[in-house]
Amino acid sequence: MAAGVAGGPGRSRARVTVRIVPYFDAASTAPLHPVARQALHAALDEGWADPARLYREGRRARMLLDAARETAAEAVGCRPDELVFTSSGTRAVHTALAGALAGRRRTGRHLVVSAVEHSAVLHGAELHESDGGTVTEVPVDRAGAVSPDAFAHALRPDTAVACLQSANHEVGTVQPVDEVAGACRAADVPLLVDAAQSLPWGAVPGTWSLLTASAHKWGGPAGVGLLVVRKGTRFAPPGPHDERESGRAAGFENVPAIVAAAAALRAVRGEAAAEAARLRVLTERIRARVPAVVPDVEVVGDPVRRLPHLVTFSCLYVDGETLLHELDRAGFSVSSGSSCTSSTLTPSHVLKAMGVLSEGNVRVSLPTGTAEEDVERFLGVLPGVVATVREKLGAPSSPVPPADPEPASLVVDARGKLCPIPVIELAKVIGDVPVGGTVTVLSDDAAARLDIPAWCGMRGQTYVGEEPADPGVAYTVRRSS
Amino acid sequence: MAAGVAGGPGRSRARVTVRIVPYFDAASTAPLHPVARQALHAALDEGWADPARLYREGRRARMLLDAARETAAEAVGCRPDELVFTSSGTRAVHTALAGALAGRRRTGRHLVVSAVEHSAVLHGAELHESDGGTVTEVPVDRAGAVSPDAFAHALRPDTAVACLQSANHEVGTVQPVDEVAGACRAADVPLLVDAAQSLPWGAVPGTWSLLTASAHKWGGPAGVGLLVVRKGTRFAPPGPHDERESGRAAGFENVPAIVAAAAALRAVRGEAAAEAARLRVLTERIRARVPAVVPDVEVVGDPVRRLPHLVTFSCLYVDGETLLHELDRAGFSVSSGSSCTSSTLTPSHVLKAMGVLSEGNVRVSLPTGTAEEDVERFLGVLPGVVATVREKLGAPSSPVPPADPEPASLVVDARGKLCPIPVIELAKVIGDVPVGGTVTVLSDDAAARLDIPAWCGMRGQTYVGEEPADPGVAYTVRRSS
Repeated sequence: MAAGVAGGPGRSRARVTVRIVPYFDAASTAPLHPVARQALHAALDEGWADPARLYREGRRARMLLDAARETAAEAVGCRPDELVFTSSGTRAVHTALAGALAGRRRTGRHLVVSAVEHSAVLHGAELHESDGGTVTEVPVDRAGAVSPDAFAHALRPDTAVACLQSANHEVGTVQPVDEVAGACRAADVPLLVDAAQSLPWGAVPGTWSLLTASAHKWGGPAGVGLLVVRKGTRFAPPGPHDERESGRAAGFENVPAIVAAAAALRAVRGEAAAEAARLRVLTERIRARVPAVVPDVEVVGDPVRRLPHLVTFSCLYVDGETLLHELDRAGFSVSSGSSCTSSTLTPSHVLKAMGVLSEGNVRVSLPTGTAEEDVERFLGVLPGVVATVREKLGAPSSPVPPADPEPASLVVDARGKLCPIPVIELAKVIGDVPVGGTVTVLSDDAAARLDIPAWCGMRGQTYVGEEPADPGVAYTVRRSS
Repeated sequence: MAAGVAGGPGRSRARVTVRIVPYFDAASTAPLHPVARQALHAALDEGWADPARLYREGRRARMLLDAARETAAEAVGCRPDELVFTSSGTRAVHTALAGALAGRRRTGRHLVVSAVEHSAVLHGAELHESDGGTVTEVPVDRAGAVSPDAFAHALRPDTAVACLQSANHEVGTVQPVDEVAGACRAADVPLLVDAAQSLPWGAVPGTWSLLTASAHKWGGPAGVGLLVVRKGTRFAPPGPHDERESGRAAGFENVPAIVAAAAALRAVRGEAAAEAARLRVLTERIRARVPAVVPDVEVVGDPVRRLPHLVTFSCLYVDGETLLHELDRAGFSVSSGSSCTSSTLTPSHVLKAMGVLSEGNVRVSLPTGTAEEDVERFLGVLPGVVATVREKLGAPSSPVPPADPEPASLVVDARGKLCPIPVIELAKVIGDVPVGGTVTVLSDDAAARLDIPAWCGMRGQTYVGEEPADPGVAYTVRRSS
């Protein structure tokens, strides 16, 4: 059954039917934790007033806010007066970055970020650059991780701030934050850690200086972010002055949501060890089984140093948007970094930085409490869904056929066609050239630059390179097997 | 009885006891409207997912978000694509101001604001000034209103933006927005209207260009603001790029709270006409009765062009903080613009701009549904509370006693003493000098500058002027009666 019913089966109820299983996109937003719901309802009664006011309702809201701050600070591993609540994780990141850059302006205007940060960080870096600052992007390996040495190398005497996520939001790879924080400390550069994906699973280790997170990622309500600025970190909050939240988060405090967020964080932390072990088994099963049941798949991200609940893979010859729709029809809600699922028609910057296949990309992120049978059902449904999409697109269904003696080279014009068509066209004709011969694909789709080399890697063919083809780009592949 | 019990009396329930009457501070934040609570609960089930996602839960959240936008736009009187949801009213104001200033940067960097805007606007203006812009503050009359002519006069060829609230948040005076918007339109200057206090009562008339509001002021949940930018208004959103809400409000959309906010706005608008008429009778009663039952009181704000639910008065010889505490003890939650109730120990900038008494200031703002008997009880309690506070402070309890022949002048050193002590000291000795004689009060309290002249106006004495007294200031008063 695709739909679960809240409140028990078989009884007619005023309450609307809710389908929360199988929702496999916890990395976008987690369903509201029952503890959060309960705390929210109570705090709507008790914490609705202005905590800055002196009367009873205000004092009660202030007490709830202070208690929530203590709870959140304990989960982060910081002092309560180092933590403020913002209106979202994005807002926390924007404020952290702008505040730390402004606070260190006398040191310099150089910013270091990893290439796979969340867009909130990267868009902040773009703004800094357009404002005259400089930015160094530290590359990642094929698993999506930065090298601590490379990160340390990027630090300069004029580096104002460095940013590293605790774990990647698209592929789940855990970053070496502890080592990088040590390098930053040695270079006297504050490290800002975007902990949005990992905070529900545990505190971020190391000597970081700033940390951000987002409550709706751990089952708290929307509308609450965390911004932690360690004592001794230079910080000049951006924007107009505002007295609330130590001057670091303007606007009326959303006490009910903050109370719910803190309660949920404590609750998920209490379950974290057991749930991580259980979900790791399920994601491990997906990592192992998908390549076994679906041909031409690449599982991406670090197989060991990774978030327990998240697994990502890409399927050759598949259009990500159609794949998502077919999975949705089958009852599964997942996310994708494929170009055709983004408004800009470019593949995810994370997959691009890793140099892995982006077409037919699927991110599965399991919420707390995901049932084993839902994962099994997903694994049962997936091969048929992928085969259907491939069939619709006319993708080659078998490995490269035996070579014909000629011709020695072929040109395929796939301009005007979007991912995954250029790769499908390539795969269709590679068998038509002899080993040593070449196929040149003309394409004006941005995803081809990533996906044609990735296809070569997966299929044991040689990627020769690209040239301008006006319009578009000519990508040349040499047949090696 | 001071405390109401939610869920009916006499039964032991799991639900916590809630005291919501008599809460008289709706202008700070209104209690959650029952419709908002209901909508929030439903939307937590139906609208929790990411509205940017393609799967079922995401599409459902998107539909709810779109419907909420239609509802809010209808209440504002704008097109849905002109309205975005921000994380608070403050954030809406900050974004509106920064975005409009940046969008008109080529025209100039001059900003016009009224002197009695909300601090969110004035702090935005301060930031603009510290960033090299120029600001003109349009003064207000003793009732708190700007003159449309004076406002029009402040507009210059290099004026980028002008700001005028629809109604004042501290004294309830309604501003001539329609006339000012006409003047701005004629001068080709976009007008930003902070409609936080008036939007629950009706749409803002006139040819304004930008409008902001805050849901928790109308009984919606915290965490939702409105930002309206009329088509054709130049606007460059501040901060890093973000795709959500047309690029004007970064961060994950808080769909459940937005849904609740829109539902509450529609509900309060449905009740607005009847409730405004009912509450206007109650606030009129306070305006008329307070000066009759409490001696030495000044009711401030426009008696006619005003918000229906808000009334403000100031009491001579009273310490605002103690007054608030005593009223709280008597079961009434009100607000104050007195210096001693602010963290900066300066009186409210609104009362200062109006030139009215700030000591012993009380703002009563009645939430929807306020019972007549609660207002009566307040009027019954107030005289005793004020008398108690005055007695504690040793304030003169009777009018100025008959004059002694000498001395012709007196100096009172009240330095180191906070409001209302300097005025109390003045009132105690004014009868000791003959008519025509003077009293000079030495004070280092900022409130004295406002309150000594205001006292003179109320008591028929002549304010002569001030001189530096190092430390502090010497304020001189001539006895006239």
